[in-house]
Amino acid sequence: MNLDFAKSDGLVTAVIQDHASGRVLMVGYMNQEAFNKTVETGFATFWSRSRKKLWLKGESSGHRLVVKEISTDCDLDAVLVKVEAQGPGVCHEGYESCFFRRLDAGEWKVADNPTYDPGAVYGGKS
Amino acid sequence: MNLDFAKSDGLVTAVIQDHASGRVLMVGYMNQEAFNKTVETGFATFWSRSRKKLWLKGESSGHRLVVKEISTDCDLDAVLVKVEAQGPGVCHEGYESCFFRRLDAGEWKVADNPTYDPGAVYGGKS
Repeated sequence: MNLDFAKSDGLVTAVIQDHASGRVLMVGYMNQEAFNKTVETGFATFWSRSRKKLWLKGESSGHRLVVKEISTDCDLDAVLVKVEAQGPGVCHEGYESCFFRRLDAGEWKVADNPTYDPGAVYGGKS
Repeated sequence: MNLDFAKSDGLVTAVIQDHASGRVLMVGYMNQEAFNKTVETGFATFWSRSRKKLWLKGESSGHRLVVKEISTDCDLDAVLVKVEAQGPGVCHEGYESCFFRRLDAGEWKVADNPTYDPGAVYGGKS
């Protein structure tokens, strides 16, 4: 039984969840190589669709995601990766979770407080 | 500020999470119409990539997903929908969550117990 990478142009969707709090931290995409790296190294690794390259999450910021458990769904085209997030936040915009905007009366509103200064961590890179 | 449907062929990724337990129940995809229906009706509605049609989750099984909260991520191409799941399970294979297989020593192994009999609910349809 293998993941179905063929269904979506060689990628599976990867949901990243904090293993302790249960908070969903981000959604990324993995090709076979990124998935293998994730399993072999124990650090979540993605395929960056915008940069078209493998992306070890935290390679710039140091905020790596330590893999605790990996599940897959019934049609094998998504994985749920429970992690311990190193550092104060997963989102490059300075938040614990990338899901920091909430729908409120039809508008997306920032619903979280920042947990770090991305300018200091990324040195001006986003 | 609007969701970015253009990035992935008109779809955003939708992560469905139980609002009470925090368990990730499934991953689906929404086009603009499915997202609008989800917001307007309060029931999670997807775009079925295999059937190429709108899909009110629970239209066959009665196991609808009542929307409690919707968030989006920093690049606006994924939504996190916290729900109250009606019925014993979200997965058409008879489990509470579609993520019922866990990676164990390189093999995907069923890690949950079924919560209902899909044959009885779906009448033989998968």
